[in-house]
Amino acid sequence: MENNKKMNSIHSSRRRFIQQTAMAGTGLILMQHTPVFSQSNGIRKMTDKIKSKGYAAKDASGTLSPWEFERRPVGDNDILIDIKYASICHSDIHQMKGDWGPQQYPQVPGHEIAGIVTAVGRNVTKFKVGDRAGVGCMVDSCLRCDSCNHGEEQFCDNHATLFTYGYPDKASPSGITQGGYSNNIVVRDHFAVHIPGHISLQEAVPLLCAGITTYSPLMRANFKRGDKIGVAGIGGLGHLAIKIAVAKGADVYAFTTSPGKIKDALAFGAKEAVLVDNTSKLAQYKGKLDYMISTIPAQYDVAAYASAVKRGGFYTQVGMPVGFQLALSNIGLANTGVNFNASLIGGIPETQEVVYYCADNKVLPQVQIINAAEVNDAWEKVIAKQARYRFVIDTATL
Amino acid sequence: MENNKKMNSIHSSRRRFIQQTAMAGTGLILMQHTPVFSQSNGIRKMTDKIKSKGYAAKDASGTLSPWEFERRPVGDNDILIDIKYASICHSDIHQMKGDWGPQQYPQVPGHEIAGIVTAVGRNVTKFKVGDRAGVGCMVDSCLRCDSCNHGEEQFCDNHATLFTYGYPDKASPSGITQGGYSNNIVVRDHFAVHIPGHISLQEAVPLLCAGITTYSPLMRANFKRGDKIGVAGIGGLGHLAIKIAVAKGADVYAFTTSPGKIKDALAFGAKEAVLVDNTSKLAQYKGKLDYMISTIPAQYDVAAYASAVKRGGFYTQVGMPVGFQLALSNIGLANTGVNFNASLIGGIPETQEVVYYCADNKVLPQVQIINAAEVNDAWEKVIAKQARYRFVIDTATL
Ligand SMILES: [Zn+2]
Ligand SMILES: [Zn+2]
Ligand SMILES: [Zn+2]
Ligand SMILES: [Zn+2]
Repeated sequence: MENNKKMNSIHSSRRRFIQQTAMAGTGLILMQHTPVFSQSNGIRKMTDKIKSKGYAAKDASGTLSPWEFERRPVGDNDILIDIKYASICHSDIHQMKGDWGPQQYPQVPGHEIAGIVTAVGRNVTKFKVGDRAGVGCMVDSCLRCDSCNHGEEQFCDNHATLFTYGYPDKASPSGITQGGYSNNIVVRDHFAVHIPGHISLQEAVPLLCAGITTYSPLMRANFKRGDKIGVAGIGGLGHLAIKIAVAKGADVYAFTTSPGKIKDALAFGAKEAVLVDNTSKLAQYKGKLDYMISTIPAQYDVAAYASAVKRGGFYTQVGMPVGFQLALSNIGLANTGVNFNASLIGGIPETQEVVYYCADNKVLPQVQIINAAEVNDAWEKVIAKQARYRFVIDTATL
Repeated sequence: MENNKKMNSIHSSRRRFIQQTAMAGTGLILMQHTPVFSQSNGIRKMTDKIKSKGYAAKDASGTLSPWEFERRPVGDNDILIDIKYASICHSDIHQMKGDWGPQQYPQVPGHEIAGIVTAVGRNVTKFKVGDRAGVGCMVDSCLRCDSCNHGEEQFCDNHATLFTYGYPDKASPSGITQGGYSNNIVVRDHFAVHIPGHISLQEAVPLLCAGITTYSPLMRANFKRGDKIGVAGIGGLGHLAIKIAVAKGADVYAFTTSPGKIKDALAFGAKEAVLVDNTSKLAQYKGKLDYMISTIPAQYDVAAYASAVKRGGFYTQVGMPVGFQLALSNIGLANTGVNFNASLIGGIPETQEVVYYCADNKVLPQVQIINAAEVNDAWEKVIAKQARYRFVIDTATL
């Protein structure tokens, strides 16, 4: 299977890299291993539950309001992060409103989280108190299976991947994981990443979901300088996809249905920005692109967009539509000869990688800082496609 | 774009082969070019319309009944084929019932056609009277564009691909193309293929749609001996997909929802045949296959089947569901990491190739010969998944 082989060899070299990164991490931890006893900061005993306050949805209306709750005590492998910023992902809204299935409430959303480590469990060597740390879409997995060993914890073979909010979690006093629109979080050390000093926390937060979600498939596409990369949907994910692909040397073609985003897409570095007020606008790009990533989080004509990719090329969907289903024109796709795939976040080593890459290369999300009390308004704007381009909650205002 | 490059290089080497084949054909035609004047057989003048009789749908009930009609005169580049056999494809039923859009009636279905050439136009050198010839899903295209020049007439860049029945055709006295459930057909020489003497016409007919439709993506998958190939849906297309993949050296895993087809799939050469009475049956094959082709012509859980393919592998859909739409679980596909594509028939040079390949390697469809009067019953059986595995109409019974 030549083409599969090629894909696999790309995958395995990526995997090797990620594995080495993971192992290097492990090595460093071992080398640094000195018996650091639990450092606590404002916690009387490590067995105490952690008092938290945040903004939670109380029902499927998805309206957020203040909520006080508890998190599990800081375990031997956990860290406690004093959250400074949490940004708003469209997924937060979908899940709170029950678009992806019924939810347990109250539920605190948020999986783009950054802050300062204020306590570490006795086995933790990856972080020390005072470190800057980020948390993304996952907070646990088995860490023993093949996928976990290869830094793909999101595909845990034991189905032990625990997502950051709304997932059943016996350890959590509320019975489910609670997310980052709050003042702190307790998380297993492996699932937090370092945020280096040369990127602000507020600019780092969107990298933890939007960044990794676009970075991972772009890296898998393995494009080279000058390749033509399409980005469909210019929102929180899409604007980062443009910036990352441009930083990696691609000629980027941006496709949006919002006239107001054309200028922005060009400012982000796109070579062309196309207003797709009608899918017929895509016809002139037929077969022109080497690869395309779509961040459109709704039902749309996939085959029409895919036709912009050359025959035999690849097209990745990263937006998760309502109901997780996309209706695909089979005949349309047959006519394009394009390979469609979907991608979901990325593993922890690669999440660490995107944070370093963006910090080092000044690939910075365009953020707008808001107070906690503005969060419901901000959600309305995200739904109305008016976010420019990521709302970041300053948790000091909680 | 390394992976795209690889796919492209596979595509271009296939393309080159197909192009060379096409050119060799042209060369032969030129070398053999002696002024052959139109040979007619029972036609008084080449300008006469051709009287035909067949079975046509008269309305969207799709019920077929005898119909007498006319075909265009045999033009300078045309041949007239006295049809001996035409086989039943599930597409015939879908289209006559209007599942793929409203139809003009009366309409004669049938795009798996074989017979004997009884007249050739003055420019025709590819065939002579008495030759065995077959016609598949297309009867015309521009033959000048890049796709046509590369033997991919189904993707004619000038949108001039004319499908065998039901497509607007000014040259046709009925205003649309009329298919092969009839006693003759007039077709541009390029769109007929030779059927060699070492395969029976009744065994050759299913190759002209079912054969090429499965052969083309299997060749594109470029698998090697011992690779694990899945075939989902064991009907007219699926049973040929098994036989072709086995002939090419693959270990074939067949997936069917019909208990009665398990034994048959093994007899066709499958290494394993799996009864998928519940999609949970697919779990034990997770990531096991190198490639999978699905011939399922209905809505089904694509991501569940795709999970049997290894991460980064390819999955091709060739069954065309009602409405041409497939609802795909985006999150399911993201979890598999599999590339989904769709494929539609194949070009004329490759159609010629599959006929020779199957004749030479004794890859023969399992056919059941029926009288014309049995055609409505046969359609019911196809719908009820009772075809074993291709009904072939003996047109002598029209
Ligand atoms: Zn997100
Ligand atoms: Zn695991
Ligand atoms: Zn067919
Ligand atoms: Zn053409």
